Amino acid sequence: MTNGQTKEAFESRLRRIGAERYHDKHPFHHLLHGGECTPMQVRAWVINRFYYQSRIPMKDAAFLSRCESAELRRTWRSRIEDHDGAVAEGGGIRRWLKLAEAVGLDSDYVKSCEGVLPSTRFAVDAYVSFVREKPLLEAMAASLTELFAPKIHANRIEGLLANYDFANETSLSYFKQRLKEAPKDVAFGLKWVLDHADTQEKQDAAAAALIFKTDVLWSQLDALYSAYIEPGRIPPGGWDGVTGLLAESERGAA
Amino acid sequence: MTNGQTKEAFESRLRRIGAERYHDKHPFHHLLHGGECTPMQVRAWVINRFYYQSRIPMKDAAFLSRCESAELRRTWRSRIEDHDGAVAEGGGIRRWLKLAEAVGLDSDYVKSCEGVLPSTRFAVDAYVSFVREKPLLEAMAASLTELFAPKIHANRIEGLLANYDFANETSLSYFKQRLKEAPKDVAFGLKWVLDHADTQEKQDAAAAALIFKTDVLWSQLDALYSAYIEPGRIPPGGWDGVTGLLAESERGAA
Repeated sequence: MTNGQTKEAFESRLRRIGAERYHDKHPFHHLLHGGECTPMQVRAWVINRFYYQSRIPMKDAAFLSRCESAELRRTWRSRIEDHDGAVAEGGGIRRWLKLAEAVGLDSDYVKSCEGVLPSTRFAVDAYVSFVREKPLLEAMAASLTELFAPKIHANRIEGLLANYDFANETSLSYFKQRLKEAPKDVAFGLKWVLDHADTQEKQDAAAAALIFKTDVLWSQLDALYSAYIEPGRIPPGGWDGVTGLLAESERGAA
Repeated sequence: MTNGQTKEAFESRLRRIGAERYHDKHPFHHLLHGGECTPMQVRAWVINRFYYQSRIPMKDAAFLSRCESAELRRTWRSRIEDHDGAVAEGGGIRRWLKLAEAVGLDSDYVKSCEGVLPSTRFAVDAYVSFVREKPLLEAMAASLTELFAPKIHANRIEGLLANYDFANETSLSYFKQRLKEAPKDVAFGLKWVLDHADTQEKQDAAAAALIFKTDVLWSQLDALYSAYIEPGRIPPGGWDGVTGLLAESERGAA
Protein backbone atom coordinates (compact mmCIF):
# COMPACT_ATOMS: atom_id res chain seq x y z
CA MET A 1 0.00 0.00 0.00
CA THR A 2 2.16 2.81 -1.32
CA ASN A 3 -0.29 5.50 -0.20
CA GLY A 4 0.66 4.76 3.37
CA GLN A 5 -1.64 4.69 6.35
CA THR A 6 -4.68 6.94 6.80
CA LYS A 7 -3.93 10.30 8.42
CA GLU A 8 -5.47 9.10 11.67
CA ALA A 9 -3.38 5.94 11.76
CA PHE A 10 -0.23 7.83 10.80
CA GLU A 11 -0.85 10.42 13.53
CA SER A 12 -1.21 7.56 16.01
CA ARG A 13 2.11 6.17 14.80
CA LEU A 14 3.77 9.53 15.42
CA ARG A 15 2.21 9.84 18.87
CA ARG A 16 3.38 6.35 19.76
CA ILE A 17 6.96 7.43 19.05
CA GLY A 18 6.56 10.11 21.70
CA ALA A 19 4.96 7.71 24.14
CA GLU A 20 7.93 5.37 23.77
CA ARG A 21 10.92 7.65 23.31
CA TYR A 22 10.27 11.25 24.42
CA HIS A 23 12.72 12.49 27.04
CA ASP A 24 10.07 12.91 29.74
CA LYS A 25 10.96 9.27 30.45
CA HIS A 26 14.64 10.01 31.12
CA PRO A 27 15.77 9.57 34.73
CA PHE A 28 17.35 13.04 34.71
CA HIS A 29 13.93 14.63 34.35
CA HIS A 30 12.54 12.51 37.16
CA LEU A 31 15.31 13.79 39.43
CA LEU A 32 14.85 17.38 38.25
CA HIS A 33 11.10 17.55 38.54
CA GLY A 34 11.07 15.60 41.80
CA GLY A 35 13.32 18.13 43.54
CA GLU A 36 16.24 15.71 43.80
CA CYS A 37 18.76 17.74 41.83
CA THR A 38 21.47 19.69 43.64
CA PRO A 39 21.97 23.35 42.70
CA MET A 40 24.99 22.25 40.63
CA GLN A 41 22.89 19.73 38.72
CA VAL A 42 20.14 22.28 38.06
CA ARG A 43 22.76 24.75 36.82
CA ALA A 44 24.36 22.15 34.56
CA TRP A 45 20.94 21.52 33.03
CA VAL A 46 20.36 25.26 32.52
CA ILE A 47 23.79 25.74 30.91
CA ASN A 48 23.46 22.79 28.55
CA ARG A 49 19.83 23.31 27.66
CA PHE A 50 20.70 26.90 26.78
CA TYR A 51 22.83 25.56 23.94
CA TYR A 52 19.74 23.85 22.55
CA GLN A 53 17.68 27.05 22.90
CA SER A 54 20.41 29.08 21.25
CA ARG A 55 20.42 26.83 18.16
CA ILE A 56 16.65 26.60 17.65
CA PRO A 57 16.35 29.90 15.74
CA MET A 58 19.36 28.88 13.61
CA LYS A 59 17.59 25.59 12.90
CA ASP A 60 14.44 27.47 11.92
CA ALA A 61 16.44 29.87 9.75
CA ALA A 62 17.95 26.84 8.00
CA PHE A 63 14.40 25.68 7.39
CA LEU A 64 13.36 29.07 5.98
CA SER A 65 16.47 29.16 3.82
CA ARG A 66 15.27 26.05 1.99
CA CYS A 67 11.62 26.91 1.81
CA GLU A 68 10.41 28.20 -1.57
CA SER A 69 6.86 28.96 -0.46
CA ALA A 70 6.47 32.50 0.89
CA GLU A 71 3.26 31.34 2.55
CA LEU A 72 5.03 28.63 4.49
CA ARG A 73 7.92 30.97 5.34
CA ARG A 74 5.53 33.59 6.76
CA THR A 75 4.02 31.10 9.17
CA TRP A 76 7.28 29.40 10.11
CA ARG A 77 9.06 32.70 10.75
CA SER A 78 7.12 33.23 13.97
CA ARG A 79 9.24 30.51 15.55
CA ILE A 80 12.36 32.65 15.14
CA GLU A 81 10.49 35.65 16.49
CA ASP A 82 9.25 33.66 19.48
CA HIS A 83 12.76 32.54 20.41
CA ASP A 84 14.83 35.58 19.52
CA GLY A 85 12.33 38.29 20.50
CA ALA A 86 12.62 41.87 19.30
CA VAL A 87 15.89 43.80 19.03
CA ALA A 88 15.46 45.34 22.46
CA GLU A 89 13.54 42.78 24.44
CA GLY A 90 11.48 39.61 24.66
CA GLY A 91 11.94 36.10 23.29
CA GLY A 92 12.57 32.65 24.68
CA ILE A 93 16.34 33.02 24.78
CA ARG A 94 16.13 36.04 27.07
CA ARG A 95 13.55 34.24 29.19
CA TRP A 96 15.91 31.28 29.54
CA LEU A 97 18.65 33.65 30.71
CA LYS A 98 16.29 34.86 33.45
CA LEU A 99 16.13 31.28 34.62
CA ALA A 100 19.93 31.11 34.47
CA GLU A 101 20.23 34.13 36.75
CA ALA A 102 17.59 32.77 39.10
CA VAL A 103 19.64 29.61 39.64
CA GLY A 104 22.74 31.69 40.39
CA LEU A 105 24.50 31.75 37.04
CA ASP A 106 26.06 34.72 35.29
CA SER A 107 23.98 35.08 32.13
CA ASP A 108 27.04 36.21 30.14
CA TYR A 109 28.75 32.95 31.04
CA VAL A 110 25.71 30.95 29.97
CA LYS A 111 25.49 32.93 26.72
CA SER A 112 29.13 32.15 25.96
CA CYS A 113 28.26 28.43 25.78
CA GLU A 114 31.77 27.75 27.06
CA GLY A 115 31.00 25.00 29.53
CA VAL A 116 28.51 23.17 27.33
CA LEU A 117 29.22 19.44 27.24
CA PRO A 118 30.70 18.28 23.93
CA SER A 119 28.03 15.58 23.69
CA THR A 120 25.34 18.26 24.03
CA ARG A 121 26.91 20.21 21.17
CA PHE A 122 27.11 17.14 18.94
CA ALA A 123 23.46 16.25 19.52
CA VAL A 124 22.15 19.78 19.01
CA ASP A 125 24.36 20.46 16.00
CA ALA A 126 23.10 17.19 14.50
CA TYR A 127 19.60 18.67 14.64
CA VAL A 128 20.64 21.88 12.88
CA SER A 129 22.46 19.84 10.20
CA PHE A 130 19.45 17.60 9.79
CA VAL A 131 17.18 20.53 9.06
CA ARG A 132 19.77 22.02 6.73
CA GLU A 133 20.13 18.83 4.71
CA LYS A 134 16.97 16.74 4.76
CA PRO A 135 13.76 17.15 2.74
CA LEU A 136 11.40 19.76 4.22
CA LEU A 137 8.92 17.06 5.21
CA GLU A 138 11.52 15.38 7.42
CA ALA A 139 12.76 18.70 8.78
CA MET A 140 9.23 19.58 9.79
CA ALA A 141 8.47 16.11 11.16
CA ALA A 142 11.49 16.43 13.44
CA SER A 143 9.84 19.46 15.07
CA LEU A 144 6.85 17.35 16.11
CA THR A 145 8.36 16.51 19.48
CA GLU A 146 6.38 19.68 20.27
CA LEU A 147 3.37 17.36 20.35
CA PHE A 148 4.73 16.02 23.61
CA ALA A 149 6.17 19.26 25.05
CA PRO A 150 3.13 20.84 26.76
CA LYS A 151 2.87 17.92 29.19
CA ILE A 152 6.55 18.05 30.14
CA HIS A 153 6.43 21.85 30.49
CA ALA A 154 3.39 21.67 32.75
CA ASN A 155 5.02 18.91 34.85
CA ARG A 156 8.21 20.92 35.00
CA ILE A 157 6.53 24.13 36.16
CA GLU A 158 4.69 22.20 38.84
CA GLY A 159 7.74 20.21 39.94
CA LEU A 160 10.12 23.16 39.99
CA LEU A 161 7.66 25.42 41.85
CA ALA A 162 7.09 22.73 44.47
CA ASN A 163 10.72 21.84 45.01
CA TYR A 164 13.12 24.73 44.39
CA ASP A 165 13.42 28.20 45.91
CA PHE A 166 14.53 29.75 42.62
CA ALA A 167 11.26 28.86 40.91
CA ASN A 168 8.76 31.69 40.45
CA GLU A 169 6.77 33.51 37.76
CA THR A 170 9.82 35.27 36.36
CA SER A 171 12.32 32.44 36.38
CA LEU A 172 9.86 30.00 34.83
CA SER A 173 8.49 32.46 32.26
CA TYR A 174 10.18 30.51 29.46
CA PHE A 175 8.05 27.44 30.12
CA LYS A 176 4.84 29.40 30.69
CA GLN A 177 5.31 31.15 27.38
CA ARG A 178 6.07 27.89 25.56
CA LEU A 179 2.80 26.50 26.87
CA LYS A 180 1.12 29.21 24.79
CA GLU A 181 3.35 28.99 21.70
CA ALA A 182 3.93 25.28 21.22
CA PRO A 183 0.32 24.21 20.62
CA LYS A 184 -0.06 26.75 17.78
CA ASP A 185 3.25 25.70 16.22
CA VAL A 186 2.60 22.03 16.45
CA ALA A 187 -0.98 22.22 15.18
CA PHE A 188 0.40 23.76 12.00
CA GLY A 189 3.36 21.35 11.74
CA LEU A 190 1.28 18.26 12.39
CA LYS A 191 -1.31 19.18 9.78
CA TRP A 192 1.40 19.91 7.21
CA VAL A 193 3.16 16.61 7.86
CA LEU A 194 -0.09 14.61 7.75
CA ASP A 195 -1.06 16.33 4.48
CA HIS A 196 2.31 15.90 2.77
CA ALA A 197 3.33 12.42 3.94
CA ASP A 198 1.08 10.85 1.32
CA THR A 199 3.04 7.70 0.58
CA GLN A 200 4.32 4.89 2.77
CA GLU A 201 7.87 5.96 2.01
CA LYS A 202 7.27 9.54 3.12
CA GLN A 203 5.45 8.40 6.26
CA ASP A 204 8.39 6.15 7.10
CA ALA A 205 10.83 9.01 6.52
CA ALA A 206 8.76 11.39 8.67
CA ALA A 207 8.52 8.82 11.46
CA ALA A 208 12.30 8.26 11.28
CA ALA A 209 12.82 12.02 11.51
CA LEU A 210 10.73 12.20 14.66
CA ILE A 211 12.68 9.27 16.14
CA PHE A 212 15.90 11.10 15.26
CA LYS A 213 14.66 14.15 17.14
CA THR A 214 13.73 12.13 20.23
CA ASP A 215 17.32 10.81 20.10
CA VAL A 216 18.63 14.39 20.00
CA LEU A 217 16.70 15.23 23.18
CA TRP A 218 17.51 11.97 24.97
CA SER A 219 21.22 12.22 24.18
CA GLN A 220 21.37 15.63 25.86
CA LEU A 221 19.99 14.22 29.10
CA ASP A 222 22.29 11.20 28.90
CA ALA A 223 25.21 13.60 28.66
CA LEU A 224 24.00 15.57 31.69
CA TYR A 225 23.36 12.43 33.70
CA SER A 226 26.74 10.96 32.83
CA ALA A 227 28.61 14.15 33.72
CA TYR A 228 26.76 15.43 36.77
CA ILE A 229 24.70 12.73 38.48
CA GLU A 230 26.70 10.72 41.03
CA PRO A 231 29.32 9.52 40.59
CA GLY A 232 29.54 11.98 37.66
CA ARG A 233 32.36 11.99 35.17
CA ILE A 234 32.65 15.53 33.78
CA PRO A 235 34.38 15.27 30.39
CA PRO A 236 37.24 17.58 29.42
CA GLY A 237 35.76 20.99 28.61
CA GLY A 238 32.54 20.45 30.55
CA TRP A 239 31.34 23.00 33.13
CA ASP A 240 33.21 22.44 36.39
CA GLY A 241 30.45 23.50 38.78
CA VAL A 242 32.27 26.68 39.80
CA THR A 243 32.91 28.84 36.73
CA GLY A 244 30.25 31.39 35.84
CA LEU A 245 28.49 31.56 39.21
CA LEU A 246 27.03 34.88 40.30
CA ALA A 247 28.53 36.31 43.46
CA GLU A 248 26.26 35.82 46.51
CA SER A 249 25.46 39.54 46.50
CA GLU A 250 24.22 39.35 42.90
CA ARG A 251 21.84 36.48 43.46
CA GLY A 252 18.11 36.76 43.73
CA ALA A 253 15.86 34.03 45.00
CA ALA A 254 18.26 31.19 44.14
CA MET B 1 52.93 38.35 17.93
CA THR B 2 50.74 37.63 14.93
CA ASN B 3 53.21 35.06 13.52
CA GLY B 4 52.31 32.75 16.34
CA GLN B 5 54.66 30.45 18.21
CA THR B 6 57.65 28.71 16.67
CA LYS B 7 56.91 25.35 15.05
CA GLU B 8 58.53 23.56 17.99
CA ALA B 9 56.46 25.43 20.57
CA PHE B 10 53.29 24.98 18.54
CA GLU B 11 53.94 21.24 18.19
CA SER B 12 54.34 21.06 21.97
CA ARG B 13 51.02 22.85 22.36
CA LEU B 14 49.34 20.25 20.14
CA ARG B 15 50.97 17.36 22.01
CA ARG B 16 49.83 18.81 25.33
CA ILE B 17 46.23 18.68 24.09
CA GLY B 18 46.67 14.94 23.62
CA ALA B 19 48.33 14.53 27.01
CA GLU B 20 45.38 16.26 28.65
CA ARG B 21 42.36 15.16 26.62
CA TYR B 22 43.01 12.06 24.49
CA HIS B 23 40.60 9.22 25.17
CA ASP B 24 43.27 6.86 26.47
CA LYS B 25 42.42 8.55 29.78
CA HIS B 26 38.76 7.55 29.66
CA PRO B 27 37.70 4.96 32.27
CA PHE B 28 36.10 2.81 29.55
CA HIS B 29 39.49 2.15 28.03
CA HIS B 30 40.94 1.25 31.41
CA LEU B 31 38.20 -1.34 31.84
CA LEU B 32 38.59 -2.63 28.29
CA HIS B 33 42.36 -2.94 28.29
CA GLY B 34 42.44 -4.30 31.83
CA GLY B 35 40.20 -7.24 30.96
CA GLU B 36 37.33 -5.97 33.08
CA CYS B 37 34.77 -5.70 30.30
CA THR B 38 32.08 -8.36 29.95
CA PRO B 39 31.51 -9.90 26.50
CA MET B 40 28.48 -7.62 26.13
CA GLN B 41 30.55 -4.53 26.88
CA VAL B 42 33.27 -5.56 24.42
CA ARG B 43 30.61 -6.14 21.76
CA ALA B 44 29.00 -2.77 22.43
CA TRP B 45 32.40 -1.16 21.91
CA VAL B 46 32.93 -3.06 18.65
CA ILE B 47 29.46 -2.11 17.33
CA ASN B 48 29.80 1.56 18.18
CA ARG B 49 33.40 1.97 17.16
CA PHE B 50 32.48 0.43 13.82
CA TYR B 51 30.32 3.47 13.15
CA TYR B 52 33.39 5.64 13.57
CA GLN B 53 35.44 3.41 11.25
CA SER B 54 32.66 3.42 8.68
CA ARG B 55 32.60 7.23 8.54
CA ILE B 56 36.36 7.81 8.33
CA PRO B 57 36.60 7.27 4.55
CA MET B 58 33.58 9.56 4.09
CA LYS B 59 35.36 12.14 6.20
CA ASP B 60 38.48 11.79 4.06
CA ALA B 61 36.43 11.98 0.89
CA ALA B 62 34.91 15.23 2.18
CA PHE B 63 38.47 16.47 2.67
CA LEU B 64 39.46 15.47 -0.88
CA SER B 65 36.31 17.09 -2.25
CA ARG B 66 37.52 20.45 -0.97
CA CYS B 67 41.16 20.10 -1.81
CA GLU B 68 42.30 21.95 -4.94
CA SER B 69 45.86 20.62 -4.90
CA ALA B 70 46.24 17.38 -6.86
CA GLU B 71 49.47 16.81 -4.98
CA LEU B 72 47.74 16.96 -1.61
CA ARG B 73 44.86 14.83 -2.88
CA ARG B 74 47.25 12.09 -4.08
CA THR B 75 48.82 11.77 -0.65
CA TRP B 76 45.59 12.08 1.30
CA ARG B 77 43.79 9.51 -0.86
CA SER B 78 45.78 6.66 0.69
CA ARG B 79 43.69 7.10 3.83
CA ILE B 80 40.57 6.08 1.96
CA GLU B 81 42.43 3.15 0.41
CA ASP B 82 43.73 2.05 3.81
CA HIS B 83 40.25 2.00 5.32
CA ASP B 84 38.14 0.80 2.43
CA GLY B 85 40.62 -1.63 0.86
CA ALA B 86 40.29 -2.91 -2.70
CA VAL B 87 36.99 -3.91 -4.32
CA ALA B 88 37.45 -7.57 -3.41
CA GLU B 89 39.43 -7.53 -0.20
CA GLY B 90 41.55 -5.70 2.37
CA GLY B 91 41.08 -2.48 4.29
CA GLY B 92 40.51 -1.44 7.87
CA ILE B 93 36.73 -1.75 7.71
CA ARG B 94 36.95 -5.42 6.74
CA ARG B 95 39.60 -5.97 9.42
CA TRP B 96 37.26 -4.41 12.00
CA LEU B 97 34.52 -6.83 10.92
CA LYS B 98 36.92 -9.73 11.64
CA LEU B 99 37.14 -8.40 15.18
CA ALA B 100 33.33 -8.21 15.27
CA GLU B 101 33.06 -11.89 14.32
CA ALA B 102 35.74 -12.88 16.79
CA VAL B 103 33.74 -11.35 19.64
CA GLY B 104 30.64 -13.25 18.52
CA LEU B 105 28.81 -10.67 16.43
CA ASP B 106 27.20 -11.15 13.04
CA SER B 107 29.21 -8.88 10.77
CA ASP B 108 26.12 -8.04 8.71
CA TYR B 109 24.46 -6.73 11.85
CA VAL B 110 27.48 -4.63 12.70
CA LYS B 111 27.64 -3.29 9.13
CA SER B 112 24.00 -2.25 9.33
CA CYS B 113 24.89 0.20 12.13
CA GLU B 114 21.41 -0.42 13.52
CA GLY B 115 22.25 -0.64 17.19
CA VAL B 116 24.71 2.25 17.22
CA LEU B 117 24.03 4.61 20.11
CA PRO B 118 22.51 7.93 18.98
CA SER B 119 25.21 9.81 20.91
CA THR B 120 27.88 7.90 18.97
CA ARG B 121 26.23 8.93 15.71
CA PHE B 122 26.03 12.56 16.73
CA ALA B 123 29.69 12.70 17.72
CA VAL B 124 30.96 10.92 14.61
CA ASP B 125 28.69 12.85 12.27
CA ALA B 126 29.96 16.06 13.86
CA TYR B 127 33.45 15.07 12.76
CA VAL B 128 32.34 14.46 9.15
CA SER B 129 30.49 17.80 9.11
CA PHE B 130 33.51 19.56 10.58
CA VAL B 131 35.75 18.32 7.78
CA ARG B 132 33.10 19.20 5.22
CA GLU B 133 32.74 22.77 6.46
CA LYS B 134 35.92 24.04 8.08
CA PRO B 135 39.09 25.39 6.45
CA LEU B 136 41.45 22.63 5.28
CA LEU B 137 43.96 23.55 7.98
CA GLU B 138 41.42 22.84 10.70
CA ALA B 139 40.17 19.70 8.96
CA MET B 140 43.72 18.40 8.85
CA ALA B 141 44.53 19.48 12.40
CA ALA B 142 41.55 17.46 13.62
CA SER B 143 43.20 14.33 12.22
CA LEU B 144 46.23 14.84 14.46
CA THR B 145 44.77 12.70 17.23
CA GLU B 146 46.75 10.14 15.22
CA LEU B 147 49.78 11.53 17.03
CA PHE B 148 48.49 9.79 20.14
CA ALA B 149 47.06 6.65 18.50
CA PRO B 150 50.09 4.34 18.28
CA LYS B 151 50.44 4.24 22.06
CA ILE B 152 46.77 3.38 22.63
CA HIS B 153 46.87 0.77 19.84
CA ALA B 154 49.95 -0.88 21.33
CA ASN B 155 48.37 -0.85 24.81
CA ARG B 156 45.17 -2.22 23.38
CA ILE B 157 46.84 -5.10 21.56
CA GLU B 158 48.75 -6.01 24.72
CA GLY B 159 45.71 -5.66 27.00
CA LEU B 160 43.32 -7.53 24.74
CA LEU B 161 45.80 -10.39 24.10
CA ALA B 162 46.45 -10.77 27.82
CA ASN B 163 42.83 -10.67 28.90
CA TYR B 164 40.40 -11.98 26.28
CA ASP B 165 40.09 -15.35 24.53
CA PHE B 166 38.92 -13.73 21.29
CA ALA B 167 42.16 -11.81 20.86
CA ASN B 168 44.62 -13.19 18.32
CA GLU B 169 46.55 -12.21 15.19
CA THR B 170 43.44 -12.21 12.99
CA SER B 171 40.98 -10.49 15.28
CA LEU B 172 43.44 -7.74 16.18
CA SER B 173 44.74 -7.24 12.65
CA TYR B 174 43.01 -3.84 12.47
CA PHE B 175 45.19 -2.44 15.25
CA LYS B 176 48.39 -4.08 14.01
CA GLN B 177 47.83 -2.57 10.59
CA ARG B 178 47.07 0.89 12.03
CA LEU B 179 50.39 0.73 13.88
CA LYS B 180 52.00 0.70 10.44
CA GLU B 181 49.73 3.24 8.73
CA ALA B 182 49.16 5.93 11.35
CA PRO B 183 52.78 7.09 11.75
CA LYS B 184 53.09 7.75 8.01
CA ASP B 185 49.75 9.61 7.92
CA VAL B 186 50.44 11.71 10.93
CA ALA B 187 53.99 12.61 9.94
CA PHE B 188 52.54 14.15 6.79
CA GLY B 189 49.64 15.83 8.56
CA LEU B 190 51.73 17.24 11.36
CA LYS B 191 54.27 18.74 8.98
CA TRP B 192 51.52 20.27 6.86
CA VAL B 193 49.78 21.80 9.87
CA LEU B 194 53.04 23.16 11.32
CA ASP B 195 53.94 24.66 7.91
CA HIS B 196 50.55 26.24 7.27
CA ALA B 197 49.56 27.48 10.73
CA ASP B 198 51.79 30.52 10.30
CA THR B 199 49.83 33.05 12.34
CA GLN B 200 48.61 33.07 15.90
CA GLU B 201 45.06 32.96 14.66
CA LYS B 202 45.65 29.88 12.54
CA GLN B 203 47.51 28.15 15.36
CA ASP B 204 44.62 28.84 17.70
CA ALA B 205 42.16 27.50 15.13
CA ALA B 206 44.24 24.36 14.58
CA ALA B 207 44.53 23.76 18.32
CA ALA B 208 40.77 24.22 18.70
CA ALA B 209 40.22 21.70 15.90
CA LEU B 210 42.37 19.14 17.69
CA ILE B 211 40.46 19.77 20.93
CA PHE B 212 37.21 19.31 19.01
CA LYS B 213 38.46 15.95 17.77
CA THR B 214 39.46 14.77 21.24
CA ASP B 215 35.89 15.66 22.26
CA VAL B 216 34.54 13.52 19.41
CA LEU B 217 36.51 10.52 20.69
CA TRP B 218 35.76 11.13 24.37
CA SER B 219 32.05 11.56 23.74
CA GLN B 220 31.88 8.11 22.11
CA LEU B 221 33.33 6.47 25.21
CA ASP B 222 31.05 8.48 27.50
CA ALA B 223 28.11 7.15 25.50
CA LEU B 224 29.37 3.57 25.83
CA TYR B 225 30.06 3.93 29.52
CA SER B 226 26.69 5.51 30.20
CA ALA B 227 24.80 2.81 28.27
CA TYR B 228 26.69 -0.37 29.12
CA ILE B 229 28.80 -0.01 32.27
CA GLU B 230 26.88 -0.77 35.48
CA PRO B 231 24.25 0.29 36.17
CA GLY B 232 23.99 1.04 32.42
CA ARG B 233 21.09 2.97 30.91
CA ILE B 234 20.76 1.88 27.28
CA PRO B 235 18.96 4.69 25.43
CA PRO B 236 16.07 3.99 23.05
CA GLY B 237 17.51 2.53 19.84
CA GLY B 238 20.77 1.37 21.41
CA TRP B 239 21.97 -2.24 21.00
CA ASP B 240 20.18 -4.46 23.49
CA GLY B 241 22.97 -6.96 24.08
CA VAL B 242 21.15 -9.75 22.26
CA THR B 243 20.43 -8.69 18.66
CA GLY B 244 23.06 -9.55 16.07
CA LEU B 245 24.86 -12.29 17.98
CA LEU B 246 26.30 -15.19 16.03
CA ALA B 247 24.84 -18.58 16.89
CA GLU B 248 27.17 -20.66 19.09
CA SER B 249 27.92 -22.94 16.12
CA GLU B 250 29.13 -19.97 14.04
CA ARG B 251 31.55 -18.65 16.60
CA GLY B 252 35.29 -18.97 16.49
CA ALA B 253 37.57 -18.27 19.39
CA ALA B 254 35.15 -15.89 21.11
